[in-house]
Amino acid sequence: MSVQLDSYLEGTWQTGEGDPVALVNPTTDATVATIRPIRRSLAQSVTWARSVGGETLRAMSFAERGKLLSAMAKTIHGAREELIDVAIQNGGNTRGDAKFDIDGATAVLAHYAYLAKELGEHPWIVADQPVEVFRGSKIRAEHVLVPRHGLAVHINAFNFPAWGMMGKAAVSILAGMPVLSKPATSTAWLAHRMFQLLVEAELVPKGAFSLLMGSAGDLLDHVGAQDVIAFTGSQGVGVKIKTHPAVIAKGARVNLEADSLNAVVIGPDVEEGSELFDLVIRDLSVELTQKAGQKCTATRRVLVPAASLEAVRGALFDRLDRIQIGDPADQANRMGPLTSKSQLEDARAGVATLAADAEIVRGDPQRSEGFAGVEAGQGCFLEPIVLQASAAAARNPAAAFHRHEVFGPVCTLLPYDGAIDQAAEIIGLGQGSLVSTVYSDDREWLAKAIAELGPHLGRLVLANEKFAGASLSPGCVFPVANHGGPGRAGGGEELGGLHGLSLYMQRVAIQGGASQLARLLGK
Amino acid sequence: MSVQLDSYLEGTWQTGEGDPVALVNPTTDATVATIRPIRRSLAQSVTWARSVGGETLRAMSFAERGKLLSAMAKTIHGAREELIDVAIQNGGNTRGDAKFDIDGATAVLAHYAYLAKELGEHPWIVADQPVEVFRGSKIRAEHVLVPRHGLAVHINAFNFPAWGMMGKAAVSILAGMPVLSKPATSTAWLAHRMFQLLVEAELVPKGAFSLLMGSAGDLLDHVGAQDVIAFTGSQGVGVKIKTHPAVIAKGARVNLEADSLNAVVIGPDVEEGSELFDLVIRDLSVELTQKAGQKCTATRRVLVPAASLEAVRGALFDRLDRIQIGDPADQANRMGPLTSKSQLEDARAGVATLAADAEIVRGDPQRSEGFAGVEAGQGCFLEPIVLQASAAAARNPAAAFHRHEVFGPVCTLLPYDGAIDQAAEIIGLGQGSLVSTVYSDDREWLAKAIAELGPHLGRLVLANEKFAGASLSPGCVFPVANHGGPGRAGGGEELGGLHGLSLYMQRVAIQGGASQLARLLGK
Repeated sequence: MSVQLDSYLEGTWQTGEGDPVALVNPTTDATVATIRPIRRSLAQSVTWARSVGGETLRAMSFAERGKLLSAMAKTIHGAREELIDVAIQNGGNTRGDAKFDIDGATAVLAHYAYLAKELGEHPWIVADQPVEVFRGSKIRAEHVLVPRHGLAVHINAFNFPAWGMMGKAAVSILAGMPVLSKPATSTAWLAHRMFQLLVEAELVPKGAFSLLMGSAGDLLDHVGAQDVIAFTGSQGVGVKIKTHPAVIAKGARVNLEADSLNAVVIGPDVEEGSELFDLVIRDLSVELTQKAGQKCTATRRVLVPAASLEAVRGALFDRLDRIQIGDPADQANRMGPLTSKSQLEDARAGVATLAADAEIVRGDPQRSEGFAGVEAGQGCFLEPIVLQASAAAARNPAAAFHRHEVFGPVCTLLPYDGAIDQAAEIIGLGQGSLVSTVYSDDREWLAKAIAELGPHLGRLVLANEKFAGASLSPGCVFPVANHGGPGRAGGGEELGGLHGLSLYMQRVAIQGGASQLARLLGK
Repeated sequence: MSVQLDSYLEGTWQTGEGDPVALVNPTTDATVATIRPIRRSLAQSVTWARSVGGETLRAMSFAERGKLLSAMAKTIHGAREELIDVAIQNGGNTRGDAKFDIDGATAVLAHYAYLAKELGEHPWIVADQPVEVFRGSKIRAEHVLVPRHGLAVHINAFNFPAWGMMGKAAVSILAGMPVLSKPATSTAWLAHRMFQLLVEAELVPKGAFSLLMGSAGDLLDHVGAQDVIAFTGSQGVGVKIKTHPAVIAKGARVNLEADSLNAVVIGPDVEEGSELFDLVIRDLSVELTQKAGQKCTATRRVLVPAASLEAVRGALFDRLDRIQIGDPADQANRMGPLTSKSQLEDARAGVATLAADAEIVRGDPQRSEGFAGVEAGQGCFLEPIVLQASAAAARNPAAAFHRHEVFGPVCTLLPYDGAIDQAAEIIGLGQGSLVSTVYSDDREWLAKAIAELGPHLGRLVLANEKFAGASLSPGCVFPVANHGGPGRAGGGEELGGLHGLSLYMQRVAIQGGASQLARLLGK
């Protein structure tokens, strides 16, 4: 028995005309839901959402929008158990994976609800202080952020159907921009159910939030100059969006979060047996196995001082050996399957690509049996794979592990000399990533890491012995911190507290007489 | 007698292999300089500038970079008279036009030199305060800006060879990114002479600043993930840059400032005879004739309450009639020619395009004689052209004046009903512009203008009776205020004080223990 997942457009649930597409349980291969994609033009739905939704949201104050987000957070949290079950069935999530996604959604909504309180009663946000346009002038310039008069088109990835959708939506709604969200089809049930809950709780003000199930159809043909497209997914699709003729012609704003060869760096001072060493191993293991490694922030490259390679590898393998893989509906299993057959095929092909420049030192990418509670050949399981490169290969710009992201439980160990300069050189070969963690107690080395690794990253986690107990693995994305990365990672910036609102707002310099500006812009 | 203008690459002056291209005096049609474009690959020059220049600048503190900018400003100001002469000869600038460009360059350099003083001794800028990653956590996130490890490629427009080059260079140099600047060929002599002065004064630290004369050759083929391309010019070229295969593949950051159909709005309360009415006429006249209307910020659309149309038109024509057009070398002439024959042809064709939807009410686009001190048929002169549309045409999204920028002394009068909502609707049809001025003493109307016009603009000037004497026409760009606009205007952001630095820096969230962050990032 499977549910049919409709789109929510122009304020109503709408069934598409296309042939049903099946959403599958990647543990059992059973169909759990279907989508009938919309084949008719989306022109009308886009125009409606932009105008009606824009008017609705801009008529609300920041505080009112914040209250809406807060109510959304409560509604989602209230249905947590049901949502977890959907994530396990359709996403192959363990209970932990599902909570990571769903509670992440709640957390972003709650955080932006909280931030709304500081935003005042104007329809704009004052961004800075007035400054004389030239010395001695009575004329000042001051910057404000006003909501763009467009539609926020959110095209989300399959790995975080909950957090991905609500993380983007929370920020645009607070900014005052209506949202049209398109979940990735394979895992869209969770996003759909979450959206349904909001509609049932009457938390979707007219036009403020639309949901498009299945393929995007002609969606992008209808973008306008005031629209914002925020995409999370592969670089290939990202390029298509960025170069889409209508996007280019209208100059719509585009934010991409694409491939990322996240690298962590273990400092030369991290000694086996220290709490910091244990943190390294714990983080590596979490990043490799959480969501079966299907996180844009998961660690793909591990820079290890050549002298520590043996110790790190041994401890990591020990830890991985203790993680039971199997049916995620059983809580004894701590890693589930990949989300689809095509993801599994891509990951296996990717491991083969990496294996041209590094040796597989743990795991068999072809293994298809022995997963707990799963019949041989069933589901989309891939056991954790660790590769290891030579010191020479690690510095080779053409090496596959610097160019190809394998989206699964796969990472490559790269020996380096322990100097932050060489670490920066190697990390730079990834051409831009979302996040790194550096592990060290050497303050000078850490300061250099900020300056030298920083340009290649959107976020840098500093882990030392003192804070090892409290430290969080790089894959945890918090609404207070920037999410995005330069170059290959798409060049985007999302979240990061109030800064995140600027994606959905226009920064305008307001120029006028000193007392005039004070009266108009003052709180 | 003409000078040959060489490129400055890899720290030396270099002559190209291409056939000489002539730079012409648009008043006399005489050749004043030549460029031999580089035909060989620029790969080596780009790599050298990125690595050597990056190391040079990152080894300097913000304060040291500020001192460099300050010395550059002094050097340029010291050669002001010579530079004005070059601008008159090669740019067709009046003395006033030339000062606007050259003093603008000095002002941006001086402003960023001044800002350098607040930036501290770290190699990064701390952008905000530390925040708990979740309530009760010992871990904090805080954002810093670090210089990108790439090359800033600046492709500049022909209309501001001085301000355009130095405005972009000042910001990247302070940020710590080396610059390769490519002036537009037709007016490149001024940029070249300015650069020469900096080299002669030993103000170009190794690799920090390169100059590419003539065509861009294969420049863009060599951009990398850490590079920034900042372009000012036509939308057509902007699109080519944005969609260039290497730019897309590497994810280089691109900032565009392209076409802009800037509109001003005269409030319904502005009465003939008031100081504010006089300001309207003065601003319109300045924007139409300064630089012969060849400013990206020049006013193209003038929204006039239908009832005031007669009065505005009459006063504007009176003022325009008093502006003598002719040889800009003679200070009696207050408007010079367009910068080239091709600009003149484009502008004439553009007026014909606009005339399909509006009536020419002043000026003859074909007039080619009677310009003071100029023989009939000589030079690239175009007298100020004013068109006028019907109220119905003004609201027609397909009307040419909402879609086509004529880059010369040309504007269209558009009647509207005096309500800010209708003004916003009409301005929005331009699909994003750089700047508007709104003229009114009605505070509520002005507040609504911020909210309703703001999303379509990069800068909004508020002009009222009280500050009429001090107000500055919209075309004046100040380093303290944002320059750029959404949609058709390219979606870019430049200048705007310290905010402008973020174009050349990577924003990174630094995550770590509370006391650890305080020690590492504290000033």
